[in-house]
Amino acid sequence: MTKTLSSTAFPKIVIIGGGFGGIEIAKKLKGKEVKVLMLDRHNYHTFQPLLYQVATGGLEADSIAFPLRKIFKGQKNFTFRNTEVKQIVPERNVVVTSIGEISYDYLVLATGSDTNFFGSKELEHYTMPMKTIPEALNLRSMILQNLEEALIEKDPVKKAGLLNFVIVGGGPTGVELAGSLCELRNHVLQKDYPELDMSLMNIYLIEGSPAVLGPMSEKSQHDAREVLETMGVKVFTQTRVLSYDGDKLSVSDGQEIYSENVLWSAGVMGEVIDGIPKDKIVRGNRITVDETNKVTGFDNIYAIGDVASMVMSEYPQGHPGVAPVAQQQGRHLAKNLLKIINNQQPEPFEYFDKGSMATIGRNRAVVDLGKVHFKGIFAWFIWMFVHLMTLVGFRNKAVVFVNWIWSYFSYDRGTRLIIRPFNRKLMTEDTKNK
Amino acid sequence: MTKTLSSTAFPKIVIIGGGFGGIEIAKKLKGKEVKVLMLDRHNYHTFQPLLYQVATGGLEADSIAFPLRKIFKGQKNFTFRNTEVKQIVPERNVVVTSIGEISYDYLVLATGSDTNFFGSKELEHYTMPMKTIPEALNLRSMILQNLEEALIEKDPVKKAGLLNFVIVGGGPTGVELAGSLCELRNHVLQKDYPELDMSLMNIYLIEGSPAVLGPMSEKSQHDAREVLETMGVKVFTQTRVLSYDGDKLSVSDGQEIYSENVLWSAGVMGEVIDGIPKDKIVRGNRITVDETNKVTGFDNIYAIGDVASMVMSEYPQGHPGVAPVAQQQGRHLAKNLLKIINNQQPEPFEYFDKGSMATIGRNRAVVDLGKVHFKGIFAWFIWMFVHLMTLVGFRNKAVVFVNWIWSYFSYDRGTRLIIRPFNRKLMTEDTKNK
Repeated sequence: MTKTLSSTAFPKIVIIGGGFGGIEIAKKLKGKEVKVLMLDRHNYHTFQPLLYQVATGGLEADSIAFPLRKIFKGQKNFTFRNTEVKQIVPERNVVVTSIGEISYDYLVLATGSDTNFFGSKELEHYTMPMKTIPEALNLRSMILQNLEEALIEKDPVKKAGLLNFVIVGGGPTGVELAGSLCELRNHVLQKDYPELDMSLMNIYLIEGSPAVLGPMSEKSQHDAREVLETMGVKVFTQTRVLSYDGDKLSVSDGQEIYSENVLWSAGVMGEVIDGIPKDKIVRGNRITVDETNKVTGFDNIYAIGDVASMVMSEYPQGHPGVAPVAQQQGRHLAKNLLKIINNQQPEPFEYFDKGSMATIGRNRAVVDLGKVHFKGIFAWFIWMFVHLMTLVGFRNKAVVFVNWIWSYFSYDRGTRLIIRPFNRKLMTEDTKNK
Repeated sequence: MTKTLSSTAFPKIVIIGGGFGGIEIAKKLKGKEVKVLMLDRHNYHTFQPLLYQVATGGLEADSIAFPLRKIFKGQKNFTFRNTEVKQIVPERNVVVTSIGEISYDYLVLATGSDTNFFGSKELEHYTMPMKTIPEALNLRSMILQNLEEALIEKDPVKKAGLLNFVIVGGGPTGVELAGSLCELRNHVLQKDYPELDMSLMNIYLIEGSPAVLGPMSEKSQHDAREVLETMGVKVFTQTRVLSYDGDKLSVSDGQEIYSENVLWSAGVMGEVIDGIPKDKIVRGNRITVDETNKVTGFDNIYAIGDVASMVMSEYPQGHPGVAPVAQQQGRHLAKNLLKIINNQQPEPFEYFDKGSMATIGRNRAVVDLGKVHFKGIFAWFIWMFVHLMTLVGFRNKAVVFVNWIWSYFSYDRGTRLIIRPFNRKLMTEDTKNK
């Protein structure tokens, strides 16, 4: 294989991305005879499954972010660089970054995914995505700012627009966001805005496919929809967004909804860096990899997690874009890389599906564990336990726990703060995500 | 007195600012026969005494901010508007805001203070103030970004500049910031940046007067300086900043310090709104008030806290700009306003000085209680207790407590996150504070 040895005898593994996959592979390489260099544009790991609670004022952003350097404190073969990777040059085994060129012996792409607007510049400009902490904070500011505006708006059409919330995409993120917004309305906002008639606040959930929570069991799909509707969410399935100009949303069933608050959770796409040949990129902007996560056609470039598409008989369109896949691929690839370095045969990856879950509100969640499905307060406790345990760091676990306990008993949300006002006009594509 | 009655029979008291003073007066007016309207450009109250812990990665911003609407939940005679006040028009008893004109019967200016750069545009542009949460977050980002940059900087002069931290102003804020930065260096950063030689990180504290902690006792001043120097802070008193161009700081003792990190805590000035006649504004940009906090020359305009200058024999330059003064004046003015409305004689304000304190690091604080001065771990516990108790809200108290306990035992800081990178070039005067 082509391999440029670095200055030391130990091979250098460069990992792009400190998400679930990147963290696991780097951890597994601790103490091994390799040099590990992680690159990330943020200096922290983001616990994406709880972003919706940041956006709806339930958690502080800092409790779901964890400094990457801290995770690897004391890991002697690990180095971190806070930088943006601009290009991969496979011919020379280097990546081009904002702090210069960096060489690698093995490259691991763990870049994850970004919001997919399916090519619509209009939707990208006017709707609010929620894949990063700054995006969740923008969303939080926008929701609260629009409520403040609604309070003083005299024009009934404009007021309706400020109070209509539309969530596009009924996957776990969309469902959790809709449920959380609904609880915010039902328990918190009426007290905060006694002058506002909260019955005017509508929450729509719009999903193109026939059911919400697409990847879950039919039972869970049904249960989740029922709970959402009981809470007051207007759920529309088999409905697509046709256009949105910042004021008026047109959907495929003929409805026109006036809304200043359109939250986009309708899809993700792999974050592919320049330099990966176009013919390796498939559906969902993912990179095709073989069963060892090696990018097809390369000897020393690997991709894991959301950005990788490993087609197997059980997963004809690749694995689902969830944390456990990334984590398992990360751990597996660490073992395989050590084997390859020692001239052993790598082993194929097998995904162990531990089940899936989504929460809709207090005491309300749905869990699929193989053929077993359950809902309600027990499912909700499992959801909380699993999320607390997956959160990185004791401090973060403790702070999230305090918030949850406090919210549970007070029916309140602690962080409905407009700390940096959102201003679409002042935002550039460059500052929006940062 | 001149008085424009609003639509209801109850007089309307407009309070500008939701700081320590504004909150206390509004609370005291609960259930009384008045209408209270609070205006603030933020939708939250900021607990300023702990901003330095946000800036140095010890606390999440959300734990020292509290939603203003939430403080007054259920207070029926209270209304809040999230708006910027642009002008006061005393002749017509209205304030001009970004959401239109608002009339008042009584106006209370509780606008607090902002950083005083003493007219220097250069210092305003290049140094970092820390009076608001966005400013503390900018500071946090900048400190961490400069450390990341120092790691890859080859030029020794530039590297020194990235690692030199200069705090200008040795009041409580400056002392607490210097101590906290020093602990960050001594306990956390060496582990985070094993490649960086942390002995290159210098922390300077520059104070124009002969001692740090100016308003405290000589004993506390001496003790604080000793502790700072033991921890490794380079303290220079009777030293003034002559100029700073973003790279090089010139000080009055002839030193030139290369630093990209100049933190400005050298002074504050009252935040006066247009419409208050110039001849009512005195030293420190404060508004002269009589002993009932009434602005000289007006019948129905009052000022409390940092923005007010009440000259008394004990306080020839007005009261110190600390939270207890604002709180006591707020509570006192509430009682006086009710008296005035009922045609009773208002009573003069008397400040009850409960003492002052500052913390320098773990187990290290100084406390002055009248003639009693003490330091060390007991002083530090008192400092923590008083600050925890003064924090608004149970959730905030709990989150801060969790952070403190965790930091104490781990010698660590949880929130060293660059959540929104600081970029001086992208910042405008308008976005910097927001």
